[in-house]
Amino acid sequence: MKTRISIITSALLLAGCSTVAEPQAESQYNASLIITNGQVLTINDEKDVIENGVIVIENDTIVAVGDASLLSRYQAPKVIDAEDGIVMPGMINTHNHLPMIAFRGLGEEGIENRLFAYFFPLEKEKLSRDLIYQATKLGAVDLAQSGVTTYADMYYHVDDMARATKEVGLRAVLGETVIKFPVVDAPEPYGGIEYATQFIEEYQNDPLITPAFAPHAVYTVSKEKLQEINRLSAKLDAPVLIHVAEFGNEAERIEGNDQQLSPVAWLKEIGVLDNRMVLAHGIHLDQNDIDLIKEAGASVAHNPMANAKGATGIAPAWEMYRQGLRLGLGTDGPMSSNQVDLWRTLSYTANMQRLKHNDRTIMIPEQVIELSTIGGARALHMEDQIGSLEVGKKADIIIIETQSPNMMPNYNPYATLVYQANPGNVSTTIVNGDIVMEQREIKNIDMAEMQQAVRTIEADIAEFAKELSKKAIKSKSLMN
Amino acid sequence: MKTRISIITSALLLAGCSTVAEPQAESQYNASLIITNGQVLTINDEKDVIENGVIVIENDTIVAVGDASLLSRYQAPKVIDAEDGIVMPGMINTHNHLPMIAFRGLGEEGIENRLFAYFFPLEKEKLSRDLIYQATKLGAVDLAQSGVTTYADMYYHVDDMARATKEVGLRAVLGETVIKFPVVDAPEPYGGIEYATQFIEEYQNDPLITPAFAPHAVYTVSKEKLQEINRLSAKLDAPVLIHVAEFGNEAERIEGNDQQLSPVAWLKEIGVLDNRMVLAHGIHLDQNDIDLIKEAGASVAHNPMANAKGATGIAPAWEMYRQGLRLGLGTDGPMSSNQVDLWRTLSYTANMQRLKHNDRTIMIPEQVIELSTIGGARALHMEDQIGSLEVGKKADIIIIETQSPNMMPNYNPYATLVYQANPGNVSTTIVNGDIVMEQREIKNIDMAEMQQAVRTIEADIAEFAKELSKKAIKSKSLMN
Ligand SMILES: [Zn+2]
Ligand SMILES: [Zn+2]
Repeated sequence: MKTRISIITSALLLAGCSTVAEPQAESQYNASLIITNGQVLTINDEKDVIENGVIVIENDTIVAVGDASLLSRYQAPKVIDAEDGIVMPGMINTHNHLPMIAFRGLGEEGIENRLFAYFFPLEKEKLSRDLIYQATKLGAVDLAQSGVTTYADMYYHVDDMARATKEVGLRAVLGETVIKFPVVDAPEPYGGIEYATQFIEEYQNDPLITPAFAPHAVYTVSKEKLQEINRLSAKLDAPVLIHVAEFGNEAERIEGNDQQLSPVAWLKEIGVLDNRMVLAHGIHLDQNDIDLIKEAGASVAHNPMANAKGATGIAPAWEMYRQGLRLGLGTDGPMSSNQVDLWRTLSYTANMQRLKHNDRTIMIPEQVIELSTIGGARALHMEDQIGSLEVGKKADIIIIETQSPNMMPNYNPYATLVYQANPGNVSTTIVNGDIVMEQREIKNIDMAEMQQAVRTIEADIAEFAKELSKKAIKSKSLMN
Repeated sequence: MKTRISIITSALLLAGCSTVAEPQAESQYNASLIITNGQVLTINDEKDVIENGVIVIENDTIVAVGDASLLSRYQAPKVIDAEDGIVMPGMINTHNHLPMIAFRGLGEEGIENRLFAYFFPLEKEKLSRDLIYQATKLGAVDLAQSGVTTYADMYYHVDDMARATKEVGLRAVLGETVIKFPVVDAPEPYGGIEYATQFIEEYQNDPLITPAFAPHAVYTVSKEKLQEINRLSAKLDAPVLIHVAEFGNEAERIEGNDQQLSPVAWLKEIGVLDNRMVLAHGIHLDQNDIDLIKEAGASVAHNPMANAKGATGIAPAWEMYRQGLRLGLGTDGPMSSNQVDLWRTLSYTANMQRLKHNDRTIMIPEQVIELSTIGGARALHMEDQIGSLEVGKKADIIIIETQSPNMMPNYNPYATLVYQANPGNVSTTIVNGDIVMEQREIKNIDMAEMQQAVRTIEADIAEFAKELSKKAIKSKSLMN
């Protein structure tokens, strides 16, 4: 890829380089994409921040990260001027149920037992392959526009989710749900195991999709089935996503848990807690649980905003962070958190721990940004691929503009990101070297078509939801 | 203002009215501004929501609110098409220290005693009339761009703040700080009383600025001075803004409080708790405090996000709301909350109460939006002027677009606002009938000039702040 050139490169022109009048005679590498003029947060081990930094990308990979002097050594057909914006690794949302974005905003009237009064009837009546595909597309666009480049998800018809996700151009870990009830894509109990296995075989070598198993929870999947999934996941080298310790009473809900082991201790006891597991929530964990998770090399997807909205509690995230656990941030599904992006979750990540520990000096912005990037990568066991801007990693990169009044001043980019920025400040999103969004414009799909499809779904659901609301409110007033 | 017309009005054209081909012969009113095609959240007592709604404005006042049929009765030289967006009263931020926006993002490295290590040295070294003026301008733009039309503030040189606020075009309640120490604009202890009195006399009849007293807190202003301020505020009919019950130990810090009365009981005891008072924070309140505040007709400015970030606690907002207290939302200053807009605070308003009460069905989105609008108006004792879209009220109106993917779907506009929207979704901001922002473009000031002024201040402060950080981190390591 080494090429001798003697013309002025676009990179040099854009950087306003003083040597612009003299053609370069030195060796230059041809890359595919160069980002210039950014405040680069590398999120490497040293947390290097490069002012007026440059990132060079060749195909899907970062090949150089450094200061403006790189511009004399690399050229590329495409150069993006970050215009003094913040350049950082794409954010990683480690827990979601993205297609439920079709339902977000429903059942928010303070309904008791929202799960049974809303979620289940809605999913039963309205879930379909097409809805999952269309909703995933909307969700993936929302993620891309807010700077999330990788998300992990537990849902149904994950092959349709994979298709939509790839069309938009995002990276995802997609777990097919396994549960003891019949569900939309598996009429037999535990039919998800078969669905997942086929999906994993199909997507095993996909550059963007990591296929996975998603046993719903310790109280909805039997010991034997968890062990079967564990064996299959080892054989297929697939991650296992599971809800753990979201509720305080899970131990007593586990079938066969005669010793009332904690959910984490139960997973250890039955031999399935390993380094392919991603535990969502982890709210009700004691120190022994944290030790077990760490020893196993398992990880936790922390969802502080959803846990506050749902009144489920505040996880011991500060303890997990300080003890070096694999810990990432998530939003949970769009009926739990409504937003799929991580911006508000960043603020909740810091502020819930501060409230809990009565200490305003903990979980500082640099640590929060670490959790949203390399932390998420470690939580998904992908830290060798993504999560930082370092040579050899996949080119998953976002640019956040710093010109808008809400981004001013910008003394400390980590604080600016955690406490000032919002999704609208993300200008450019790159995944696997592909520009998914540039200057807020989504590149890979027809936006009008996507939006029209969503509006059609919305109109259909709205009618049905009105009836659900009436019934739910009626049942509430009967209860009083 | 009744005018017979026989031409096609721009309003009719924009609305795509079917009578467009036939000149109107009926009576029509000439108004100054019409908003069409919105999902209008009136926030009136019935919480009426008008689909495809219209608002008619004459000068500074709302003269009609209704459905599209209004378009046959009113015309105006300026018509804004809300394009199916949400139209609602401008939001009201009831507690801020806006000029500290010049410092936001500083001292976020987990510094112990940030007040003494950062705030005081910074303010002592860098505060000036010019900084306060320029920073207020940035802050007011940030507020306008995020849909806040009125803010209440406690700071210094409030005449300069008033000037900047009026230039941008916002409404504000500006309280000059009174405190027992010498400060930037008052070298004598309590010099703020004199400063405030002059300011109040000067701005008494201003259409946008409500001048006020701002005694800092019960533990930094003596009984005698609180009583003097109370007498002056009655004479001048000016609000009194004060920090109350932000910390758990305020009672013991009040000079002369031998009975250890709570801060609220103390205010009552010394005869100053009245219906001109706005109490900021109110975190540590018991039921007796709430009763006293309600009886007095005083109000509370609730700052849930700042209180979480600062680890000061969760106020009994649900109790205050249910008991009909005058309760509004605020952010506190930009070094406490960093964001001056209310969007994240909306989410914290719901979620902190849900966590505190372990109940996911309370503080539903409709209630949160109520608090951010008419609640704020009641908290500032301005509910006859602002806080809802009703005939006779001042035209303080915002439009939030619903076309962006993050705003889809929009089943329940209150939930969409509280849990999906971000500041970038606010398209238009109108204050007192004046269009302050349209399609995100700020109208009344030169943005480039403002931003340049802020960058100059930022560069100057950044140098000084680096030294402060070094010292603070050094003193922290000495402490360990
Ligand atoms: Zn979940
Ligand atoms: Zn304050």
